Amino acid sequence: MARCDLSNAELLDPDPNPDPDPNPDPNLDPGHESAGSSQSSHRLLAYSDALISIIATVMILPVAHTAVETNEELRQSLQVLLSTKIAVFLMTFLIVSMAWAAHSRLFQVIVRIDDSLALFNLVCMMLITLLPYTFSLMASFPEHVLGILLFCSCVMVIGMVQTVIVIYAFRRPHLLHQRLQGSPHLPEYQHHLLRVILRVPLMCLLASLAAAVCFQLSYVLLAVVIFLPYMSSWLQWLRIKVLGPEEEPAGELLLYSFLPHEPVSKERLEAFSDGVYAIVATLLILDICEDNVPDPSVVSQRFNGSLVLALRSYGPEYLAYFGSFATVGLLWFVHHSLFLHVTKVTRLMGLLNTFSLAFVGGLPLAYQLTHEFPRHSQNELEAIQISCVIIFFAGLFQLCIWVVALHSQKECLGPAVRYGGREHLLMFAKLWLYPCVALGTFLLTCVLSQFSSPIFHLMELTVPVAFLLLRLLLRLLLALRHSLLQRPSSSTLPSAADSENTFGPI
Amino acid sequence: MARCDLSNAELLDPDPNPDPDPNPDPNLDPGHESAGSSQSSHRLLAYSDALISIIATVMILPVAHTAVETNEELRQSLQVLLSTKIAVFLMTFLIVSMAWAAHSRLFQVIVRIDDSLALFNLVCMMLITLLPYTFSLMASFPEHVLGILLFCSCVMVIGMVQTVIVIYAFRRPHLLHQRLQGSPHLPEYQHHLLRVILRVPLMCLLASLAAAVCFQLSYVLLAVVIFLPYMSSWLQWLRIKVLGPEEEPAGELLLYSFLPHEPVSKERLEAFSDGVYAIVATLLILDICEDNVPDPSVVSQRFNGSLVLALRSYGPEYLAYFGSFATVGLLWFVHHSLFLHVTKVTRLMGLLNTFSLAFVGGLPLAYQLTHEFPRHSQNELEAIQISCVIIFFAGLFQLCIWVVALHSQKECLGPAVRYGGREHLLMFAKLWLYPCVALGTFLLTCVLSQFSSPIFHLMELTVPVAFLLLRLLLRLLLALRHSLLQRPSSSTLPSAADSENTFGPI
Repeated sequence: MARCDLSNAELLDPDPNPDPDPNPDPNLDPGHESAGSSQSSHRLLAYSDALISIIATVMILPVAHTAVETNEELRQSLQVLLSTKIAVFLMTFLIVSMAWAAHSRLFQVIVRIDDSLALFNLVCMMLITLLPYTFSLMASFPEHVLGILLFCSCVMVIGMVQTVIVIYAFRRPHLLHQRLQGSPHLPEYQHHLLRVILRVPLMCLLASLAAAVCFQLSYVLLAVVIFLPYMSSWLQWLRIKVLGPEEEPAGELLLYSFLPHEPVSKERLEAFSDGVYAIVATLLILDICEDNVPDPSVVSQRFNGSLVLALRSYGPEYLAYFGSFATVGLLWFVHHSLFLHVTKVTRLMGLLNTFSLAFVGGLPLAYQLTHEFPRHSQNELEAIQISCVIIFFAGLFQLCIWVVALHSQKECLGPAVRYGGREHLLMFAKLWLYPCVALGTFLLTCVLSQFSSPIFHLMELTVPVAFLLLRLLLRLLLALRHSLLQRPSSSTLPSAADSENTFGPI
Repeated sequence: MARCDLSNAELLDPDPNPDPDPNPDPNLDPGHESAGSSQSSHRLLAYSDALISIIATVMILPVAHTAVETNEELRQSLQVLLSTKIAVFLMTFLIVSMAWAAHSRLFQVIVRIDDSLALFNLVCMMLITLLPYTFSLMASFPEHVLGILLFCSCVMVIGMVQTVIVIYAFRRPHLLHQRLQGSPHLPEYQHHLLRVILRVPLMCLLASLAAAVCFQLSYVLLAVVIFLPYMSSWLQWLRIKVLGPEEEPAGELLLYSFLPHEPVSKERLEAFSDGVYAIVATLLILDICEDNVPDPSVVSQRFNGSLVLALRSYGPEYLAYFGSFATVGLLWFVHHSLFLHVTKVTRLMGLLNTFSLAFVGGLPLAYQLTHEFPRHSQNELEAIQISCVIIFFAGLFQLCIWVVALHSQKECLGPAVRYGGREHLLMFAKLWLYPCVALGTFLLTCVLSQFSSPIFHLMELTVPVAFLLLRLLLRLLLALRHSLLQRPSSSTLPSAADSENTFGPI
C-alpha cells in the first residue's frame, strides 16, 4: 500500500510482501512517499480513544443492573455479589487502560499511518473490545480453564497484531517519529519496542500453559502481568526518591522506559478522559430512554390515563440523572481546567488519572443505587454514603495529579497555576471543592441519617452554583481576610500581603 | 469571571452582572484579557461532540431491544411496532443532529471560552440529552398534551441557555471570532445570531400554545420546525441551480445564512462522526457483556458444567458482533479516507453525512435481528435483507458526499482525489465497494434464499480482505485492461492511456 506511486514497470510484480528496506535513510525520498500514501494519524487515534474509553467504562453496566432486592435478609449476600462485581469492574478498567496506554505509547513512535496500518489498527481495536468480555467470563468461572485460555489468547492475539504493526511501520521509516527517521540504530529500536510489546503476551502464554497444570498458578502469573507496570513504576519512583535520579536514557528510548517521568501524550490522555466522562454522563439517560417511557396500556390501566401520574413515579430516576450528569460534568470541568495548564504529562500523572477515571466510571452504579431503595431505609443511607466515597476519591485523585505536577512544576505546569501564579489559588479551590463537599456530605449523613437524601440532593444543587461563583467567593474571602488581618495590627500587613503572594491574586 | 484581573479597587463592587462594553475594540487590551481568563474551546467542543453523538445514537437501543416474537401470527403487528420505532429513531437522530449543527455554528462564532461559558455549555448539553427522551414520550403518547409540552419546553430552555451564551460572549468580544472582534457592526451580528437561534424555540412556543387548542396543529408546527432547515437548504440549492448563484453575503454572516454552500467546521463534523461510529461499534459488545456471560448455576445444571457448550449456544451473537464491528469499522475507514482529502465541508455535505450516520446508527438493530430468528425462516431472510439495505444506504450517502464535493472540487477537495488526481480511482473504488457488495448480497439472497445466512457471513469476511487488497486489485485490473486493450489493436492505445489519465494512475 505504501508503494502506490511506483512506476509502471513494477506493476508487473504485484508482490504483496514488499522487501524490507535495509537502508532506512530518511533523505532517500521522504516527500515523495509521505505525500501520497501516508496520512496524519490524528483522527485514527481520536477514534481509537473513543472506542477504548467506551469499552473501559461499559463494564459498569452489569454491576449497575444487578437486581437489588429490598429484602433485608438477602442484603448480605447481595453485598458480596456487588463487591465481587465492583472488583471485576475495577480490574477490567485497569486492564483496558493498560491496553490503551500501550496503544498510546506505540503511536507515539509511529506518528503517521497509511491505509493498511489503519485497517490493522481496527483489528486491534476489535480485539481490545473483547478484553472486558473474556475477563468477566474468567471472573465468573474462575475454575474453568476455558476462561483463562480465552482471556490469554485475546491478549496474545493483540500482541501479535501490534507486532505486525511495528514490523510494518519500521519497514517504512517515513511513518515513524521524526527523531527515529534519521537514526542509524533503527533495528535496535525495533528490537526494544518488540521486546516491550511482547512481554505481556508472553506472560499470558506462560499463564495459559500453566493453566493446564494448575489454574491457581496462572492467576498468579496474570496478577503479575496486570500489576507489574504499576508496581515497577512505583518502585522506580521510590528508588529515585531514595537514591536520587539515575542517568536518563536517550530521548527516543524514554518513550518506552516505564519510568515515572516518561512523557505521555497529553492530547490522547485528554481524548481518553473525555470519552470516559461522556459515556458515564450518558449511561443513565440510556437507561432512562429504554426503561422510563411508560407503556400506553399501563398508563391507561394503572394511572387512569394520566401521564403526569405515571411520570411522577419516575421522579427519583430523573433526580438521579440530573445529579449524575451535573457531578460528571463538573468533574470533567475540573479535569479540563487542570489540563489547560498542564504542559507535560508524566506516567505517574497518567496513572493517577486512570484511578480518578475508574472512580468516575463507578458513578452510574452509585446513582443507580441511590434511587432504588425505599426512603429512610438503611440501604438508602449506605447507597448515598457509597456515592459520597466515590465522588471523594474521584476528586482526590484529580487533586493528586496537580500535587504531582506541582512537584516538578517548571516542566509540567504553565506559569499561571505554579506556586505564586495568578490562578494558583483558584485551581486549588476548584480541585478541593468536590473532595471537601463529598466528605462533608458523608459526615453529615452519618450524624443526620434520617435526612440523608435531602442533604445529598441539596449538595448536588449547590455545587454547580458554587463553581459558577467560585472566583467571586475566593475574591470575597481574600478581601475579608485582608480586612480582618489589617484591623488588629497594621504591622502584620506585609506578611499578609506576602502570604497572599504565595497564592497569587485571583 | 472574565474580570479576574481587575484591580483591588473594584473588589469592593462584586457586581455579578458586569456592564456591557459599549466599545468592543479588540485593541483595548486583548492580550491582557485573553491570557488570563479565556481558554481555547477545543476540548470543550470535543467533549460536546462526544456527548451529542452518543445521545443521538443511543435511541436505537429501545428499537433493537424490542422483544421479537418468533410466532408468525404476531409478526405483522410487530412489524408495525418496529417500523414506528424506527421512524422515531430516525426523527430523534435528525433532531439531535440539528441541535448539534446549531451548537457547532454557534461555536464557530464564539471561538474562545472562559469558565462561565464552559459551565453554561454543560447545562446546554444536559438539556440536549433530554431531547431523545422527551421526543420518545411524545411519540408514545401522541394525544397527551404533556408530551408535546415537555418536548417543546426542552427546546425552549435550550434556546434560552444559548441566548445567555450569546449575550455573555458578545459582551466579551475577545471570545469571538477574529473577524468579528474588530467589526463596528457587532450589535447587528448579535441581533442576527439571536434571531436565528430563537427561531426554533419560538416555533416550539407557538406549538405548545397550539396544543391547548388542537394538538394536531402543534404537530404540524413541529414538523415545520424539524424539516425547515433541510427544506430551505434544498430550496435554496434548487434556486441557485435554476436562477444562478445570488450575491453572497459578507463573510461573517455566511456562518449563519443556511445556504447550502455555507462552510461547516470539518473538525467538529469528524469528531461527531467518530462518536457515532464508536458508540455504534460498541453497542453490541455492551449487550454481549451484559447478557452473554452465562450464570454459573445455569452452566452446571443445563450444560453439565461444560462452559464450552454454554458458550457455543451464543455463537450467532459472536458472529453478529464481529460482523457489526467489521462493517462499522470499515464504514468509518471509508469516511476517514474521504475526509482526509476534503478541504472544506459545506452544509449540503454535512446533511448527507447526517443521513449516512443515521443509517450507520441503524446497524445495531440490523445485526440484532440477524441472529434472533431460527435458521432458514422467512424472518431471518428479511432481517438479512434489511441489513443489506441499511449498509447500502450508509455507503451510498457517503458516496453522495464525494459526488457533491467533486461538483465544486477546487474548493472542497485536495488535488489527489479530484478528477485526474493520483488517488481518484482508488477513492472511487473505496466508496463504491460497500454499496455494490450490499446490493449484490441483497440480490443473491433473493435468488438463493435458503443460503442467505452463509452468503451474508461470507460477505462480512471477504469485504475486510477486499479493502486490504484494494490498491493491489485496482492495479491488477488496470494492468489487465491495459494489456487487453493493447492486444486487439495497437491504435487504441492512446485513447486507453487517455481514459486512464482521467482516473489517474494508482
